[in-house]
Amino acid sequence: MPTARLLLLLTVVAAAAGSCFCSGQEAKPPTPPPYCGSVRTAVEAHNIIGWKTFPADCAKYVADYITGDRYGRDSDVVINEAVAYAESLKLSGSGKEVWVFDVDETALSTVPYQAKHGYGVQPYDHANFLQYVAGGSAPALQGTLRLYQRLLQLGIKPVFLTDRTEDQIAITTHNLLSQGYSSWEKLLLQPIGLQTSTQPFKTSERKKLVDAGYVIVGNIGDQWSDILGSPEGCRTFKYPNPMYYVA
Amino acid sequence: MPTARLLLLLTVVAAAAGSCFCSGQEAKPPTPPPYCGSVRTAVEAHNIIGWKTFPADCAKYVADYITGDRYGRDSDVVINEAVAYAESLKLSGSGKEVWVFDVDETALSTVPYQAKHGYGVQPYDHANFLQYVAGGSAPALQGTLRLYQRLLQLGIKPVFLTDRTEDQIAITTHNLLSQGYSSWEKLLLQPIGLQTSTQPFKTSERKKLVDAGYVIVGNIGDQWSDILGSPEGCRTFKYPNPMYYVA
Repeated sequence: MPTARLLLLLTVVAAAAGSCFCSGQEAKPPTPPPYCGSVRTAVEAHNIIGWKTFPADCAKYVADYITGDRYGRDSDVVINEAVAYAESLKLSGSGKEVWVFDVDETALSTVPYQAKHGYGVQPYDHANFLQYVAGGSAPALQGTLRLYQRLLQLGIKPVFLTDRTEDQIAITTHNLLSQGYSSWEKLLLQPIGLQTSTQPFKTSERKKLVDAGYVIVGNIGDQWSDILGSPEGCRTFKYPNPMYYVA
Repeated sequence: MPTARLLLLLTVVAAAAGSCFCSGQEAKPPTPPPYCGSVRTAVEAHNIIGWKTFPADCAKYVADYITGDRYGRDSDVVINEAVAYAESLKLSGSGKEVWVFDVDETALSTVPYQAKHGYGVQPYDHANFLQYVAGGSAPALQGTLRLYQRLLQLGIKPVFLTDRTEDQIAITTHNLLSQGYSSWEKLLLQPIGLQTSTQPFKTSERKKLVDAGYVIVGNIGDQWSDILGSPEGCRTFKYPNPMYYVA
């Protein structure tokens, strides 16, 4: 598997780079290697796929990225483009135009969970993640909320489409409402025990929307599996996320 | 058009920022605004589309990006991933597996042309670009050449697919050969006077390959129009390019 090989190589390099602390000195976190930003770009552009963790020697890089200014700036540029696109649309007046939103890392943030798990350099902890979701207090990603509010003003209806499972509908509804997502045309969750991965599930749900007469004018998600697969929507937006990969 | 609105906004901001030089002092180029890197990321991730020029106040940023270390590092991460993917494949032994390469900014560089045109912040100069191509001395992008050579060793055949037109076949052949691309299964150029844009042309050519029994195991290009549209190829790679956009 190519990503495994890359990560192995990066691990070896990192181990070599980290092996020269002098005894008696306080160990400072090593400066992240310069390729960390290139790995992030390659993740955003769908060049690196199927990865389990961000390279361990980029731990400081990815933490700085998420907690510093860059994550917000990258997100704002995407959201500004999405808002300008939505404002440019000529709507039919039928009320059938919808915009598909992913939930985790797009509408709502899991950064409070990620902060306890190395922002992507530690393996996914399913039990802990479920606990986080069950808490129902994931904060809104403010840029996405801004896009959502503008779409409502324009008359484009939001559809939430998530790989959260149907047993999480009550807490997800509560969490979205409490964070300012005040209404939606549909909230589509994954049936429990579904055997497919996210991309075919979401593609199939979008197809049902189109078959029911909806026009998907836009689609935004932090995973390529949110926005690949016909019908994708008239235009798609990849929200930044260097913390995890979902196929 | 959303991108036009973004660029207008950026132009206004840039004009305001650039208006306060004191007379008698030498004007230093202003520090690029922090969003330049976010715009580049958004271009790579196919969030900003249909743009004509990179924001003018990012002139120094994009020149530094291309002529500094980052462009090469970003490219190397993509190429490493492509090589590892190719090495992971189990070939059929039929000799029908091919890899599709775009030419300009993927196999061959137009950076010597771009250097005279602001690396993307100045509008495309068609006559001058044609002159550059006709010169036949575009240098190979070394990472792509490395991928190409590895594919030959593995038994995967290269196909070049370019929106250069058929009247440029002789100079393109010469340029590729002189830069180390020593053989190929096909070199497919655009018919003169074709009315479609690049994406449908390339998609149609890939479909012809598949119909002829080829298996497109990989596809690499610097434009999303190189790698979107079924059949894309089993896996696609977006080579970095913040300098221009082709639909």
